[in-house]
Amino acid sequence: MKALVYHGEGRKAWEEKRRPHITTPTDAVVRITTTTICGTDLHILKGDVPTVTEGRVLGHEGVGIVEEVGPAVARLRPGDRVLVSCISADGTCGSCRRGMSSHCTNGGWVLGNTIDGTQAEYVRIPFADTSLYSAPLHVPDDALVMLSDILPTGFECGVLNGHVSPGDVIAIVGAGPIGLATLLTARFYSPSHIIMIDVDDYRLETAKRLGATRAINSAREDPGIRVMELTGGRGVDVAVEAVGIPTTFDICQAVVAAGGHIASIGVFGKSVELHLERLWSRNITITTRLVDTVTTPMLLKMLEAGTLDPRPLATHRFRLDDIVRAYDTFSNAAEEKALKVILASS
Amino acid sequence: MKALVYHGEGRKAWEEKRRPHITTPTDAVVRITTTTICGTDLHILKGDVPTVTEGRVLGHEGVGIVEEVGPAVARLRPGDRVLVSCISADGTCGSCRRGMSSHCTNGGWVLGNTIDGTQAEYVRIPFADTSLYSAPLHVPDDALVMLSDILPTGFECGVLNGHVSPGDVIAIVGAGPIGLATLLTARFYSPSHIIMIDVDDYRLETAKRLGATRAINSAREDPGIRVMELTGGRGVDVAVEAVGIPTTFDICQAVVAAGGHIASIGVFGKSVELHLERLWSRNITITTRLVDTVTTPMLLKMLEAGTLDPRPLATHRFRLDDIVRAYDTFSNAAEEKALKVILASS
Amino acid sequence: MKALVYHGEGRKAWEEKRRPHITTPTDAVVRITTTTICGTDLHILKGDVPTVTEGRVLGHEGVGIVEEVGPAVARLRPGDRVLVSCISADGTCGSCRRGMSSHCTNGGWVLGNTIDGTQAEYVRIPFADTSLYSAPLHVPDDALVMLSDILPTGFECGVLNGHVSPGDVIAIVGAGPIGLATLLTARFYSPSHIIMIDVDDYRLETAKRLGATRAINSAREDPGIRVMELTGGRGVDVAVEAVGIPTTFDICQAVVAAGGHIASIGVFGKSVELHLERLWSRNITITTRLVDTVTTPMLLKMLEAGTLDPRPLATHRFRLDDIVRAYDTFSNAAEEKALKVILASS
Amino acid sequence: MKALVYHGEGRKAWEEKRRPHITTPTDAVVRITTTTICGTDLHILKGDVPTVTEGRVLGHEGVGIVEEVGPAVARLRPGDRVLVSCISADGTCGSCRRGMSSHCTNGGWVLGNTIDGTQAEYVRIPFADTSLYSAPLHVPDDALVMLSDILPTGFECGVLNGHVSPGDVIAIVGAGPIGLATLLTARFYSPSHIIMIDVDDYRLETAKRLGATRAINSAREDPGIRVMELTGGRGVDVAVEAVGIPTTFDICQAVVAAGGHIASIGVFGKSVELHLERLWSRNITITTRLVDTVTTPMLLKMLEAGTLDPRPLATHRFRLDDIVRAYDTFSNAAEEKALKVILASS
Repeated sequence: MKALVYHGEGRKAWEEKRRPHITTPTDAVVRITTTTICGTDLHILKGDVPTVTEGRVLGHEGVGIVEEVGPAVARLRPGDRVLVSCISADGTCGSCRRGMSSHCTNGGWVLGNTIDGTQAEYVRIPFADTSLYSAPLHVPDDALVMLSDILPTGFECGVLNGHVSPGDVIAIVGAGPIGLATLLTARFYSPSHIIMIDVDDYRLETAKRLGATRAINSAREDPGIRVMELTGGRGVDVAVEAVGIPTTFDICQAVVAAGGHIASIGVFGKSVELHLERLWSRNITITTRLVDTVTTPMLLKMLEAGTLDPRPLATHRFRLDDIVRAYDTFSNAAEEKALKVILASS
Repeated sequence: MKALVYHGEGRKAWEEKRRPHITTPTDAVVRITTTTICGTDLHILKGDVPTVTEGRVLGHEGVGIVEEVGPAVARLRPGDRVLVSCISADGTCGSCRRGMSSHCTNGGWVLGNTIDGTQAEYVRIPFADTSLYSAPLHVPDDALVMLSDILPTGFECGVLNGHVSPGDVIAIVGAGPIGLATLLTARFYSPSHIIMIDVDDYRLETAKRLGATRAINSAREDPGIRVMELTGGRGVDVAVEAVGIPTTFDICQAVVAAGGHIASIGVFGKSVELHLERLWSRNITITTRLVDTVTTPMLLKMLEAGTLDPRPLATHRFRLDDIVRAYDTFSNAAEEKALKVILASS
Repeated sequence: MKALVYHGEGRKAWEEKRRPHITTPTDAVVRITTTTICGTDLHILKGDVPTVTEGRVLGHEGVGIVEEVGPAVARLRPGDRVLVSCISADGTCGSCRRGMSSHCTNGGWVLGNTIDGTQAEYVRIPFADTSLYSAPLHVPDDALVMLSDILPTGFECGVLNGHVSPGDVIAIVGAGPIGLATLLTARFYSPSHIIMIDVDDYRLETAKRLGATRAINSAREDPGIRVMELTGGRGVDVAVEAVGIPTTFDICQAVVAAGGHIASIGVFGKSVELHLERLWSRNITITTRLVDTVTTPMLLKMLEAGTLDPRPLATHRFRLDDIVRAYDTFSNAAEEKALKVILASS
Repeated sequence: MKALVYHGEGRKAWEEKRRPHITTPTDAVVRITTTTICGTDLHILKGDVPTVTEGRVLGHEGVGIVEEVGPAVARLRPGDRVLVSCISADGTCGSCRRGMSSHCTNGGWVLGNTIDGTQAEYVRIPFADTSLYSAPLHVPDDALVMLSDILPTGFECGVLNGHVSPGDVIAIVGAGPIGLATLLTARFYSPSHIIMIDVDDYRLETAKRLGATRAINSAREDPGIRVMELTGGRGVDVAVEAVGIPTTFDICQAVVAAGGHIASIGVFGKSVELHLERLWSRNITITTRLVDTVTTPMLLKMLEAGTLDPRPLATHRFRLDDIVRAYDTFSNAAEEKALKVILASS
């Protein structure tokens, strides 16, 4: 089969690889019909993720058809159309039992990291019964693939951790795919105002089309000052950090109201300064989280019922074997006005 | 009357002051029978709290007898024995209605800060109906006075914010009065292990007498390494910061398990480094809080039922007019083996 | 002034009454600009509510202008436009402090019950600071008056008690004003399906216009069977009882899924049969609640932000002095296709 | 092997049965070292549980040694000492994923019900990885076996569903094994008062030894009246029903305070009268639950830490092959002063 293989910092190729097969009774092999590229894949290519070694097939998002299942797989059969979760969950360890599959003892984020991933014609999925989801009939692949990672990430790490509640005023810092996934799922809880903060006007426009009530371009105005004006000096109930750098975390500290939440989603490469000298008395809650994908069944219901439509996040579409060009587009997201780049097998 | 008056950085005196009277219909005047000194009072004397101006009577903890009530006070009468809460709550603003009286628009921490406090023969208490509590009959003053501040602080900011739950392994960093109040109230939720961390052996011994299952002297061993040994490399479910300096916050970051809580209680004078480069994927919750005293009614029930006994925290006892000497003892806590210093009017 | 006075079972009159005045420092007197009639008022007129005695002015819903305030009222001034809450809350008793003002020791539901109510030109409101709410500028009276009772009732007793969550399938039994208020506020949490059950086709049509995804006329089909068909035999996550009779409570027991909630809102005149022989092992939660109006500030924010519009519930409009005719219409709701009947002072 | 076999209403025998073996890759076979008898086993023998057919080996509680595991069992090996949970959980169905394994699509309560149980020398356990628990080293069998059913049942269905909180006044109706397990685990949350209600003085005495603060013999005094006296007319925050008959459910309705919880644990054979005509406005929560055993890992931690000791519940001890005599004792519990009857293999 063909796959997108990592060959060390800055090097990747779409090349021939041996097709995966069942190695453990709980495995399944899935033929990929749709996959996509994540910001994390770009980090890997920069050499920032030391757990990824040369020869690894990248990718942790995908939709496909079950090709083969191990003898202990009970819930799936060859031919089933499935969503691949970015988190592989053994379903039996202490972490999985408490709903924290991101820290599964035997799984977690392994796809395209410590085992071969989904940017390939076929992928082996461990713990298939608890890591693959039957696809609802009428939901197209390009909507479904958003549930591999970005929608549960925005929802769990941003919306649920941030305790977004009806009537809340919320700010989302970062209008990339994760920030927009947070926006889409924050609306499940009917906040009264959603303020989107980014430096890219195109992304801010997209946010407004998807339901943001205000947009602040932090390259042009000070978001701390602007948010305080908009909220009568009070600040926001929930500030979601969806970038992963000190500057955006600072914005969250500047705009959060007393009693509010800072939900940090971003993948941070360095530490930040936490202003406890000001926040110690402000009754603030700060959360971090690697997505657990425990809400995937609920998000599938929402997709199926039509109350969630993530397709506007798919801005570009390529054939799977054109993936190297897709990487170029995605790496150049601002200029290309790219959010999620869909790769389809046919 | 006599009162302990602040005269600018480093200066205080027990001197004659005009006795307070009712100025607003919701006020009460209380004759103090017992008061105590808080670490915050020492901060004020160092000039660290700019809201406190010269001439201010210090103190925000106390037990006394109602002397006089304003015409709008409905729940109290002269002669009632009462607990003074360190938080004055108007009971009607948005913050009070959501249980966050620490940020009451018209109150909050005002006693011994922006209005005269309890280290005096008499004190005026605003919003008396929602800031004073009828004292249970058989509970002595020196137990009761611990509910003005340290017990609700340890319980709300440490135990509740930290979500201490049955079976949890918890660490409390700082075995001073607040840390020990956290320990006493953490036991309400039956954690399986309570690890106390401090640099003072006397305080650690006290912690063990009050129910700590382990003590770590962080002057002698690395608490990060020791906690990991004790927990099989997992870390603690809840780490409570009860000091207020970068070093102790760092210990919390070092010992918290994936999925765990850091409940920060300390009053911080400067920012800290938050290790998001490590914690971003660890599903951590960090909280700050100024005590709201919403749990005071419950704590009073526990005192009355005998399921809570904070008297071991009272290590020294003085007459109220001997308060200057009491300050000396409390300022020199390590040498004097002082925790809380009780000041009684007779 | 004129007021609608109860004169014992079946008798009422719009007649001259002495205008109310301040009797306690925490009182306010409000000039009513808009009021409405509640199903409870009809119960009172049937003689079903023994706490209501002859001579009582009825009504517990209203919007008006503050005419006069007592000396202890801090948050309101004459001339302020206000919403009258159906619950009067002293804000200081144990019940109020835990957010259960429905059981306020000195208040609760007293208006139009044990003290004179809002179906009058003027009304005295006790504990004004915690029982009246400043009206948002641009929200018209006929939307605002729905927040006196039916919207917080539907939201607190139905939606919050029922734990309506994103993706849930819910059923609301009863499409009268309370059931429809539940429907409007359930949508804050984005359930995937809302099944409305009633015997009145007009009300079911209204429900569909307001967002119900299915309507079942229980006079024509068995709702137990129909709901099981619609849910693949699973039942609903939340069943809201919004009528108050054994038949509708039975429907809830029949349609609720394992692990589900029955949120009972109705005012029951008799006991019901609880099928514990079937439900004991079904992990069911059943709740009852008299509205506490703790969510009124949030609902006001939603009204102001335009994310909630209850005006479709107002089907008829009368002048306040035409109230006897309004009662006729409301008593004959099915034939008149009446939901809420608005009474305006001018 | 030998096993206790059900032969239709009223008939059972300790007789030869074929030893079980692995039939599915996720199975384990366990050699039983300790088992016990549950009230449910007596119900089965009365013919009350139609899912139990003739020839069935009874029993759903046990401790033993893993004899053999299927190829898909990852967490256990032959020789491991294990606790058998009364609930078999596949770990992958929708119910298991939301923590409601009692309603597992492929499991739930099946042991000694629809498949052969633990009152035997060997038992086959389906879904072994998620239905068996490694036994802590130093905890004896007779303590451990209480975690198969009664401790998680009392804790989940009584304490957690009842939301027992620090300072609460609680009543437990029924001082049998389940009621006493509720008492032991309610103490994790430090209620201020625990009122035990039963008709058996011996059981009430046991309750007091285990921490009940009051005992009411409902054969001699009216518990409704007595509880109101004890609580100043307020009632209890939590009333736990631990019997399963209308009389005891009525007691719960009589003693619960406004805003309180009724946690129903009992296995009901008939419906009860729910007094909504009184409770509709009382803000009551009523729950039912079949135990999910999601708290078993936490309870194991408490056992291991020594903060939970259920051994006083073991009143009698027999050899496993003496089980028929053990049934006689347990069936005659009042006269024999029997709570749990331990059956040990050697």
